[in-house]
Amino acid sequence: MIGVFDSGVGGLSVVKEIFKELPQYPLIYFGDTARLPYGTKGADFVKRYSAKIIDWLLKRGAEIIVIACHTSSSWAADFLKNKFKGVPIFEMLGPAIKEVSGKKIGIIGTPGTIKSGSWEKKLLEFNPKLKIYSRACPLFVPLVEEGWINKKITREVAGEYLKEFKNRGVDNLILACTHYPMLERVIRRAVGSGVRVINPAESVARELKFFLADKEPLIGKTQFFFSDQPYNLDKISHLCLNQKIRPIIKDPF
Amino acid sequence: MIGVFDSGVGGLSVVKEIFKELPQYPLIYFGDTARLPYGTKGADFVKRYSAKIIDWLLKRGAEIIVIACHTSSSWAADFLKNKFKGVPIFEMLGPAIKEVSGKKIGIIGTPGTIKSGSWEKKLLEFNPKLKIYSRACPLFVPLVEEGWINKKITREVAGEYLKEFKNRGVDNLILACTHYPMLERVIRRAVGSGVRVINPAESVARELKFFLADKEPLIGKTQFFFSDQPYNLDKISHLCLNQKIRPIIKDPF
Repeated sequence: MIGVFDSGVGGLSVVKEIFKELPQYPLIYFGDTARLPYGTKGADFVKRYSAKIIDWLLKRGAEIIVIACHTSSSWAADFLKNKFKGVPIFEMLGPAIKEVSGKKIGIIGTPGTIKSGSWEKKLLEFNPKLKIYSRACPLFVPLVEEGWINKKITREVAGEYLKEFKNRGVDNLILACTHYPMLERVIRRAVGSGVRVINPAESVARELKFFLADKEPLIGKTQFFFSDQPYNLDKISHLCLNQKIRPIIKDPF
Repeated sequence: MIGVFDSGVGGLSVVKEIFKELPQYPLIYFGDTARLPYGTKGADFVKRYSAKIIDWLLKRGAEIIVIACHTSSSWAADFLKNKFKGVPIFEMLGPAIKEVSGKKIGIIGTPGTIKSGSWEKKLLEFNPKLKIYSRACPLFVPLVEEGWINKKITREVAGEYLKEFKNRGVDNLILACTHYPMLERVIRRAVGSGVRVINPAESVARELKFFLADKEPLIGKTQFFFSDQPYNLDKISHLCLNQKIRPIIKDPF
């Protein structure tokens, strides 16, 4: 099975892209709703719980891990790859960075992701000449969770958050939070049609498909676990997967 | 000492009112930033962690407990008063309800607080003839944490959230979340000057002062603990206490 984890329900936007590329593959999802959000937590906390979750996913039969959570991808991916040597671990940064094709790169994410500076660091390793601008957009997640996907207020918040990218002539914009692809239309409108908007979930799903191409097919049963009752799951699962999902509530930690 | 706890930094708006009424009293604050927000967690989780925190505050010398967190006050107060018999425990609902003086009462809070129905239940015990209208306003907390206290977007969000209260002729509005008093001006403007806005923190602080009037003064040193690095503490402590505070980061659980 493909093990996917996130701090909450946002990772379902990553599941959406995996299902598009690999519809026949079973998947085990863990959303750490009891401890969400990770975006405002410290690095040690994020590392500790990410490791616990991977351990648990492996015990339940996951053979491949996708860190759908951007905060965990930013702060814990290297640590986790080192700790779980031999396990294929996919994270949200690497695959998206390979798809960057501009000079001025904008990054938007949670305060934790932006503060970590990981995107900046990895983008500059990839190409030291890039100009990078980043901004935390903490209102986007609750706007999505309200279902205010295409409301005037949402367009105004997006305008406020993204105007500096527009003014600076950013040519690529990376959506470094699992919730943000659900606002993609509003975000595209705010930055203008000349800007390439990169959804890292799409990049990860493509890379995963490529990795699995010459492997034996994975087996198992798709299940969605959450460590506490998720808020507005129906709204989010409808937005991402166009269907209701049956959550299994279980806090193994 | 007065032990005050909250899921995060919002409880500092309660500390503000306590300091106004009892400036000479020492206080020990615990913000459970490692597990925030409580507003989207389940009742069992909130009870379990609230009990752990009270236990810890008592061990560190607290003699009186203030549950500054509205979600915990809503879901766990009766359970906690029962568990810690003999300890004076103040919560956010009772004192505010005694100050209600209208017929149509509006309540705004986090999804958890509103879903719990506790305010409704206690208001109707107090006066079964009251008409009660409630609404979760999940964007208010991140708006405060952005420092967007008096921005056009904030006024629009408030207008959207509060228009039904205006239309229904609500005469009292209870701010059932610790962050909301920081938006009091915008909220007052959105509901109109005829509506009495009740800040439960003020009611609790008055009750606490009354309770302490004939007691020996409490001793100790005021300290602020957080279970994880708090996000935007400087902004919030400045908004609430007009000063920076020195956080002690410690997760005892």
